[in-house]
Amino acid sequence: MTKRITTIKEMQEITTTLKLKGNTIGFVPTMGALHDGHLTLLRRAKSENDISVASVFVNPLQFGPDEDYEDYPRQIEIDEQLLIDNGIDYLFYPSAEEMYPTVPMTIHVGEMASVLEGAKRPGHFDGVVMVVNKLFNIVQPDRAYFGKKDAQQLAIIEAMVKLFNHNLEVIGIDIVRENDGLAKSSRNVYLTEDERLEAVALFESLKEANKAFQNGERNAEKLQSIVINYLIEHTKGKIDEVAVYAYPELKPVDTITGQVFISIAVKYSKARLIDNIILKDERND
Amino acid sequence: MTKRITTIKEMQEITTTLKLKGNTIGFVPTMGALHDGHLTLLRRAKSENDISVASVFVNPLQFGPDEDYEDYPRQIEIDEQLLIDNGIDYLFYPSAEEMYPTVPMTIHVGEMASVLEGAKRPGHFDGVVMVVNKLFNIVQPDRAYFGKKDAQQLAIIEAMVKLFNHNLEVIGIDIVRENDGLAKSSRNVYLTEDERLEAVALFESLKEANKAFQNGERNAEKLQSIVINYLIEHTKGKIDEVAVYAYPELKPVDTITGQVFISIAVKYSKARLIDNIILKDERND
Repeated sequence: MTKRITTIKEMQEITTTLKLKGNTIGFVPTMGALHDGHLTLLRRAKSENDISVASVFVNPLQFGPDEDYEDYPRQIEIDEQLLIDNGIDYLFYPSAEEMYPTVPMTIHVGEMASVLEGAKRPGHFDGVVMVVNKLFNIVQPDRAYFGKKDAQQLAIIEAMVKLFNHNLEVIGIDIVRENDGLAKSSRNVYLTEDERLEAVALFESLKEANKAFQNGERNAEKLQSIVINYLIEHTKGKIDEVAVYAYPELKPVDTITGQVFISIAVKYSKARLIDNIILKDERND
Repeated sequence: MTKRITTIKEMQEITTTLKLKGNTIGFVPTMGALHDGHLTLLRRAKSENDISVASVFVNPLQFGPDEDYEDYPRQIEIDEQLLIDNGIDYLFYPSAEEMYPTVPMTIHVGEMASVLEGAKRPGHFDGVVMVVNKLFNIVQPDRAYFGKKDAQQLAIIEAMVKLFNHNLEVIGIDIVRENDGLAKSSRNVYLTEDERLEAVALFESLKEANKAFQNGERNAEKLQSIVINYLIEHTKGKIDEVAVYAYPELKPVDTITGQVFISIAVKYSKARLIDNIILKDERND
């Protein structure tokens, strides 16, 4: 049975005691409205650690003034049942007042937040880093799990853990896909039948880029063209973004020397789909 | 024998193992050039915990561009001998490159850093909070010791620990004084014989304010006047600052309702002396 904890003090006392007894703790921070992606992370957290903890907290600090903080989906009873069904040991579910009685100092992410999602949502990653920093100190996990679908978030969290010296391992989990390769998303149901068939082009275009990369293509603009051309040819969806950045630095690149990350967004009639791939030289593995 | 550790990884592994075995860790972060004040903190850290750790790190982030980062006194061999003499278990002595290979995000202290020392040194407390945050995650102490001589720093560290939910207790240690009450300082040797005799007026003026406070005086301006008048009467040193702030909020006050903090600075011919007192209603203790 999943235990629901609502105060920082109790959560921290529980994890302190558990760690003192030698237990490892696996942690999945979420904003609730749990879906397949979260469940994949949760199952990994459970299987790789003695104790599994999920947090559900809609973090006001990561929403801009014009964003949907108030309207963000909240369904704690459904979420809790999913955690119970998956055998998660603890649900940390604090109030905003518990987490932020006052905010006398802030964290500011530099250049890594100046591209992609970060460019569109000023201050968003500052809020993400603050809440994850707090949650790490409260839950004290040995391993924390994040999806690679939010690759920029993952890179920024990894940079935070390194800079702040959190004593834990960040584990990035591959994007969960349908059988034909389409990244799972709650938005996929908004696709028409034709769009659903075409939408496989997103992942296919990334695989084309990966093929070229593995064959030695190191020109970022060329890889971008490969993706764009594939998408134009294989789907009528409107290309919203095809971006290539060094990963995990999130810096623009011309000639790729290390890892690179290609992020795409395509707009269909009623859904904007995203996907990404991290390309690394497989010969060095 | 004090063990000198220079890498984050090794220090963190050591404290992780020690904690897993049930040891409590007492920690004193310093910039080296250890004096009586530090030794008082270190002795407390040693006596109250199973393991004692001191860090010596001149933190570049807390120095402004025109400040004395390069010229700050460095005397690691002398410091290490003092730690050995006092039976401290570990000296954490990392390089600036080890601590800050990159700085992809920053911490900004808000209003609490806009007064006193913080007002004179923009960015100073941002750097302090960053390094202490890192050191807490590396050393993982149960108790961390700071002197009340830096009362603003202590208040800001306490606010950080509360906001970031570090799992430890911050312990503020009373100012160490000479027999006549003068706060110990390496700068006291720069006083002439007459100045040295007069310098007791700093603490005496604060005691006068405390006397009035305990007798019910709650007007901040009146307390400030008591200090100023006492200083004018009892020393020829030039009054540089007499400030009254709510503590630990560090906000200006007219009528005092909770704790208050009086900070003074007096300039003598070759030394600027500082002192402070935190006034709290002793009837509530």
